[in-house]
Order: sequence, then C-alpha cells, then structure tokens
Amino acid sequence: MKKVIPLNKLVEQFERMPGIGHKSAQRLAFHILSLTDEEIKDFTETIVEAHDKIHRCSICCDLTDQEVCKICSDENRDKTTVCVVENSKDVMAFERTREYNGIYHVLHGVISPLNGVGPEDIAIKELVSRMNNTDINEVIMATNPTAEGEATAIFISRLLKPLGIKVSRLAYGIPVGANLEYADEFTLLKAIEGRKIL
Amino acid sequence: MKKVIPLNKLVEQFERMPGIGHKSAQRLAFHILSLTDEEIKDFTETIVEAHDKIHRCSICCDLTDQEVCKICSDENRDKTTVCVVENSKDVMAFERTREYNGIYHVLHGVISPLNGVGPEDIAIKELVSRMNNTDINEVIMATNPTAEGEATAIFISRLLKPLGIKVSRLAYGIPVGANLEYADEFTLLKAIEGRKIL
Repeated sequence: MKKVIPLNKLVEQFERMPGIGHKSAQRLAFHILSLTDEEIKDFTETIVEAHDKIHRCSICCDLTDQEVCKICSDENRDKTTVCVVENSKDVMAFERTREYNGIYHVLHGVISPLNGVGPEDIAIKELVSRMNNTDINEVIMATNPTAEGEATAIFISRLLKPLGIKVSRLAYGIPVGANLEYADEFTLLKAIEGRKIL
Repeated sequence: MKKVIPLNKLVEQFERMPGIGHKSAQRLAFHILSLTDEEIKDFTETIVEAHDKIHRCSICCDLTDQEVCKICSDENRDKTTVCVVENSKDVMAFERTREYNGIYHVLHGVISPLNGVGPEDIAIKELVSRMNNTDINEVIMATNPTAEGEATAIFISRLLKPLGIKVSRLAYGIPVGANLEYADEFTLLKAIEGRKIL
C-alpha cells in the first residue's frame, strides 16, 4: 500500500493514546489535516501549555497550575478530613457530588506488584508527611474497589493507624439505579453485610 | 467544581475532535500530561509537519506530501481506469484489496444540498478536466451507497457520458461473510436484481 509518510506518523502518534485504535487514529489524523493553520496553532499551543504548566499541588498532589491547588487553598473546606483517591479524575468525580467538603490526597496510582508499582512509586510518603503538620483526624480511603485498590487502602491504613488517625473506607453496596438481577455476587454479599436498619 | 484552566482548555480541544466525547477527551488530556517533554515535542511537531506538508495531489486530489501522489506517479498502474471515491480513506480501503490496479480520483465529499455542499464544493471540475488530457476510458463511481453518494454518482455520470467515457458503478449486494437474516430489504432486493448465473 502506498503511504504518505507524514500522515502515517500522525496516525501512529494518535494510536499510542489510550482507547484509540487504528480507525480512530486515522479519523483524528484526517481531522487534523482539515483544520486551519490558526486552529493547529491553537491546538499545539494548548497541548504545550497544559503540559508545561500543570504539576502536582504541593499539599495534596492533585494536578494544578498553581503552587497549591484551589481545593487546598479554599478556606471553606474542612481540613480535618482527607479523601485518598487514585487519580485526579476521582477528585472530579467526588466534586461532582457537591456534598463532600473535605480535602483530598491523590496517590497517582495504586500498589500493583504485577505492574512493578510499589508503595514508593505512588504518593504515599507525601500522605504520611501531611499527618504530622495538620489537624487531620479522618482519612477516607477512596481507592477503587479492585484487588489493587483494596490492597493499597489496607497498606495505607496500617501506616496511618499507629499515628492515631481514624481511617475509613468507602461503603460497598448496590449502585443507585442499578438492577439487582445484574449485580455480581460479591457486591450483593457486601450489600447484605453492610445493610442498615430502616 | 474547581477547575484547572490549562487542563480544561486541553480537554475542550480534544472534545472538538470527531468521535471524542467528554470522558475520552479527559482521558486523552491526562495522557498528554503523562508524556515526557521529548514526547510532547515529537507529538506537536508531527501534527504541524503533517498539517503543513500534506496537500492534494495535482492529478487525483488524493492527499500526498509530494506534487504528484505515489499512485499517480507509479508507472505500473493502469492509467485507463479511474475509481472515483469520496475521500482518502476510501482509497486506502481499495488499496487493501491489492487487486485494483487503476488510478483514483478523490472528490473530498459528496453533493449534499442539505449540508450546503454543491457540485462546485467537491473536486468534480478537476475530474472533468482530467478527461481531456488522458487516455482514460472507464470511470468507476465508488461513492458510498447512500442517498448523497448515489446522487453524486449519477450527477458525475451525466457529465462524463457525453464525453464518450464509460461510467460504471460498484455492484450492490450481500457483503461477503454477512448473515442474510440481518440484511436489510433494499440490499436483498439489489442482490436479487444483480444475481449471476452459476
């Protein structure tokens, strides 16, 4: 097949992105070709700007373009409760509830020996060092309900409990709006175990 | 919700791309943040290079980084047969058959009055002017089997027939490997009409 080299390089670049297969990469590459010079300038500048300016908050390790992120620097947030999450997308998910008013800690991953990720590879020591300086009295472990997320939650709780900090875990159960028929047996079991008196 | 402005701008840029919703755009933006400086440079340079270098072939209007594309400049291709397609992806699809040895003409769209696309907005005049200079004796209309593709094929055939050129259309029928049960009635009707003696 006769190929146009710069086009192929572009398709390859898009193929490296998560969730983008060959067909999608082609579609994105043709979209790039259809943009004006102005739009291309805008697109590449936005990429470079975001990549240059965004780094970790010096307190909670969430991504920010400031020294301290907006949540950590917000005086109305409850600084006594820290919700520990795997990544920034999880912070966004909790913020969408509009109810949680505490602060966060972003681990940027989970302990996963199979993938070569140990406790020192994620932001655990930053979390532990936060415990010394502040009036934090509860840490909510909000890692994903997967084997790795669970192991990470347990690992961290064992580090924090000796420091006299209350460590809690998100409740397991049936998702709101779901159909019991399709719930897996582990979730159902957890839902029965965690049942509440009406 | 507290937002990081450069990140949001990046997510918005990705959301403008075809087939990319909010969740995918977020995932791509976080992927960008995870790249090294080197990889970002490579990515943005590839975009700019592709956008700058790729233009239409002066003969067939397919995308190329040369004056004349590889297919048009290939001496082994049969220059008497032109396959007229809607876009470059269709050229790639025909090339994957490894059987078609003629040349192409890329319209870059179809006539679609509802979307404000008239005959002058796609590469029809370039196709007509090719008929004067060369020894082309057959034009295969390979626009999509949609209402617009069909109308475009008929429009072009009416322009070319008076010039004494044989104009053909791709065969309609059951796709190879498909299940008759799921074929729509129009396709089945076309398959019966176009049946061949065994």
